[in-house]
Amino acid sequence: MSILIIGSIGLDKIENPFDSTERTLGGSASYLALSSSYFGQDVSLVSIIGNDFPDKYLSLFQQRSIRTHHLQRSNDFPTMHWHGKYGMDMRYHTTELLELNSLIEFNPVLPKECKDREYVAIGGFMPKLQGELIDQLGDCTKMITLDTTRYWIENHREDLLDVLHKVDVLSLDNIEARLLSNEFSIAKAAKKILSYGPRYLIINKEGNGSLLFYDKQVFFSPGLPLLQSFDPTGLCDSFIGGFLGYIAKVDDVSLPSIKRAMIYGSTISSFSTEEFGVRGITNLSEEQIDDRMQEFIEMVQFEINIEND
Amino acid sequence: MSILIIGSIGLDKIENPFDSTERTLGGSASYLALSSSYFGQDVSLVSIIGNDFPDKYLSLFQQRSIRTHHLQRSNDFPTMHWHGKYGMDMRYHTTELLELNSLIEFNPVLPKECKDREYVAIGGFMPKLQGELIDQLGDCTKMITLDTTRYWIENHREDLLDVLHKVDVLSLDNIEARLLSNEFSIAKAAKKILSYGPRYLIINKEGNGSLLFYDKQVFFSPGLPLLQSFDPTGLCDSFIGGFLGYIAKVDDVSLPSIKRAMIYGSTISSFSTEEFGVRGITNLSEEQIDDRMQEFIEMVQFEINIEND
Repeated sequence: MSILIIGSIGLDKIENPFDSTERTLGGSASYLALSSSYFGQDVSLVSIIGNDFPDKYLSLFQQRSIRTHHLQRSNDFPTMHWHGKYGMDMRYHTTELLELNSLIEFNPVLPKECKDREYVAIGGFMPKLQGELIDQLGDCTKMITLDTTRYWIENHREDLLDVLHKVDVLSLDNIEARLLSNEFSIAKAAKKILSYGPRYLIINKEGNGSLLFYDKQVFFSPGLPLLQSFDPTGLCDSFIGGFLGYIAKVDDVSLPSIKRAMIYGSTISSFSTEEFGVRGITNLSEEQIDDRMQEFIEMVQFEINIEND
Repeated sequence: MSILIIGSIGLDKIENPFDSTERTLGGSASYLALSSSYFGQDVSLVSIIGNDFPDKYLSLFQQRSIRTHHLQRSNDFPTMHWHGKYGMDMRYHTTELLELNSLIEFNPVLPKECKDREYVAIGGFMPKLQGELIDQLGDCTKMITLDTTRYWIENHREDLLDVLHKVDVLSLDNIEARLLSNEFSIAKAAKKILSYGPRYLIINKEGNGSLLFYDKQVFFSPGLPLLQSFDPTGLCDSFIGGFLGYIAKVDDVSLPSIKRAMIYGSTISSFSTEEFGVRGITNLSEEQIDDRMQEFIEMVQFEINIEND
């Protein structure tokens, strides 16, 4: 199966109380593409980079067999730049600076081979453009996931609401979910957001696992307590990358498959948060992934039969 | 099978930003006894009440078929009194007042029928006395659970450490776990606490589920996101009540049984947190419990096979 990743690419500055990094590869598309590349599917990346984008990061995508020939490059602007700062809890950040730069020029006309991809992950960027890109997709599309961030919820709310009924899976963190719904209770927030259109809503509770809401039900995929969470940047995107990578591999959008995909999402994103930026997801072995999957499975699996107990 | 509950009984004042209640039944033994009473086993309660203890609460225990004839009553002191106050997060409390009152006189000599109980839950009270009571138990005992609170960790640390190697299961919330271990990371805290002696450690992460640590492994039982958490007082105790009630019913202390018991613990304690004090666990139907169990099961169960995927 084939996967299309559409999103931003950035050169980020990330700080936490213990360390910091500058001009590190970031942006939703980077996390989505790298995370989804571990499932042996054909991954294409549609995004825009600036006139300062280092070749080493292009090579990084190519080493993971991610198709980069549909990347636009801006002549006039540098690459998008985000500067985030995490507090002592190592979970919540403030955005110190967001310079859209080259992202302003992002307005791709999808070539036919991109329109025909079965599985599409759309990262957080201008909601109006997210909608226009979805409208270009062909009939082969089996699942579209969408992400957004606080910035777009706060500044482009109406455009965002227009997009939500066009997607199958919406992915948010708990702060974004509260912001979008104006509800503090995550359960109430989820109910309201599902009424906006997406069939599935995934809420990542920083460090406390991920919830899948659908109809009136909920499924939970835990966070690993033994994990050293060092940088949660890109957690939602690397979760969705692993999630959609698995769905594409098995080519099955049924609920049982989606539940399994949640565990793969947790697995891949757990590697992502162990190191700054995308470093944790650039070079994983199959064995590392299987071992961690096993940890997740052992954490929640039990045999039970209410009738007999 | 038979269950012995040993712990404090109190008349509590509980406040949160939305409501408050006074002289409501509390104390570890109340939550433990009521929660464990839903599994059809023979439950005995060993505790002390004061000269002001209302008959209606004695009747409440008796209605749940909990044996109360080993309850001591102090002639000189009123019942233990705890005044706790929850903040806007509805999770964390401050202790405004703790008057041990009658609990000071608590020093039971266990009668033979209590010594021979198979399953024993010891709530949080003076650690030295917890140890002395455990020493009185006979050879029939198949599992001992122990709880404690911040007050005992901070003021009777050495006595508490002496008790820990005498119990099978220690139950703490995450703040207590950090306080006892001097570790912020829950994983490191758990490792250290297991080295103090208990075979199993259960850590309740207020509102974010419960973790079971054993050897180098961990099992997770989630919190219900759809739940209206109104009063988390007694969460750990009602969890252990449900946990031990199930273990006693199936009379099986194997790891798979303990994992199932975690889900029962989550189920019963979820009812407890919906209302002030013990009100949520005084009159549950089998159907209510089964329905909520099903919610928990649906939240985490999936079929997966790494080899085939």
